Amino acid sequence: MSEAGSLVVVGLGPGTAEWLTPAAADALARATDLVGYGPYLDRAPMRPHQRRHASDNRVEVERAAMALDLAAQGRHVAVVSGGDPGVFAMAAAVFEALDGGDSRWQAIEITVEPGITAMLAAAARSGAPLGGDFCAMSLSDNLKPWETIVQRLTAALNADFVISLYNPISSARPWQLGEALKLAGTIRSADTPVIFARAVGRPNEAITVTTLDNAHSESADMSTLVMIGASTTRLIPRNNERPYVYTPRFYGGGR
Amino acid sequence: MSEAGSLVVVGLGPGTAEWLTPAAADALARATDLVGYGPYLDRAPMRPHQRRHASDNRVEVERAAMALDLAAQGRHVAVVSGGDPGVFAMAAAVFEALDGGDSRWQAIEITVEPGITAMLAAAARSGAPLGGDFCAMSLSDNLKPWETIVQRLTAALNADFVISLYNPISSARPWQLGEALKLAGTIRSADTPVIFARAVGRPNEAITVTTLDNAHSESADMSTLVMIGASTTRLIPRNNERPYVYTPRFYGGGR
Repeated sequence: MSEAGSLVVVGLGPGTAEWLTPAAADALARATDLVGYGPYLDRAPMRPHQRRHASDNRVEVERAAMALDLAAQGRHVAVVSGGDPGVFAMAAAVFEALDGGDSRWQAIEITVEPGITAMLAAAARSGAPLGGDFCAMSLSDNLKPWETIVQRLTAALNADFVISLYNPISSARPWQLGEALKLAGTIRSADTPVIFARAVGRPNEAITVTTLDNAHSESADMSTLVMIGASTTRLIPRNNERPYVYTPRFYGGGR
Repeated sequence: MSEAGSLVVVGLGPGTAEWLTPAAADALARATDLVGYGPYLDRAPMRPHQRRHASDNRVEVERAAMALDLAAQGRHVAVVSGGDPGVFAMAAAVFEALDGGDSRWQAIEITVEPGITAMLAAAARSGAPLGGDFCAMSLSDNLKPWETIVQRLTAALNADFVISLYNPISSARPWQLGEALKLAGTIRSADTPVIFARAVGRPNEAITVTTLDNAHSESADMSTLVMIGASTTRLIPRNNERPYVYTPRFYGGGR
């Protein structure tokens, strides 16, 4: 029987190596096997004798099971994930597979290396839109009913959280973002700042700051993070540049 | 008239240099002046000719104004912040000061360098508790009314978000966390997983996983992040170690 290996779920951050933590770089370097979606694997430096197992972007739990199998065979496996692995990414899929899964997986040492998630990168590029209380939601109704998304979004809008929408749109989910923006328009005012942050930290980065009444789902694609401001979120105009967006830390009578 | 300088708000991450991004390290190295709370400044490597301006932890807007003044004089200023500067930290304070502030500040180039925020570090150490939709709230009622906090917390609990509580307790705010946990107990079940993540990434790191009916505010201090699971958050027991905590990505009928 071979000694149990290890599995680390590694967050690569949003794209640039400048946002990859030393701990994550180290975890990639020490792994005997890298498992993940092809474009993420391409971001890890090549190492001699390191095996790469590229997969499609959709089969998270199967990919996790494959990684756990490798680790159970004594390999040291890094499952790579964009952004932070714990935020709408691979970490939950690994624990879903582990929970009630193959008993040989129980001896594997499993760790998670955090990364800069898209919401934090988008916020940093925009100013400080997350200065107040905020929430993050996946707009994908592949894994939860659309009614749950509507309920949560309504609650977050009424409670005046800044809202980050992950997975806003895809060819298979073309209308959900439009509905979400329409719902937001029934609760927040028309001039509420909205940020479309596309491919932050990558060469094709594009950030747009607009208002809720001018926000259209066509401005987003699969690699866009959409952020809807709270009632207190403000713009600071700049010459020849998009405005800064920030949410003050104080609220109501609380300054 | 001197040329305008620059100001970058730098996220140091939760503590260890292993979680400091190369971009943040670079920003610290290039600055002529470092501004921030003393213990954060101590985490930046000393550089010849670099000036350090340590301040108390409470005077965020005054500290931001001082940093903006230095930048307006042509200095290249790094305002240092623990975790991510955009999450309950210094970035919002800088934009609050800028907004309607001294007109000489308008020419300053202001940027933000993201960091690993405490919530992501705590989640990584625990498993994948943020696998579903989540929100982050500051429990401090210094800057917003307690009624707002109660409303938001109630909304987040009813909408079944995983909830991260920043600034849960301090000597000046001893009872708020107890009230928040009590409120959570009226909406979520007694066996809901709760994580107390203290000083993650620092030598005195301590993480406790408990349940809502056993969660007591005495388990938290100023450097603790408290995370309350959703109804779907689960534990995976381990031998001789605290259990993994994770929230599946699927919800309701949505698998």
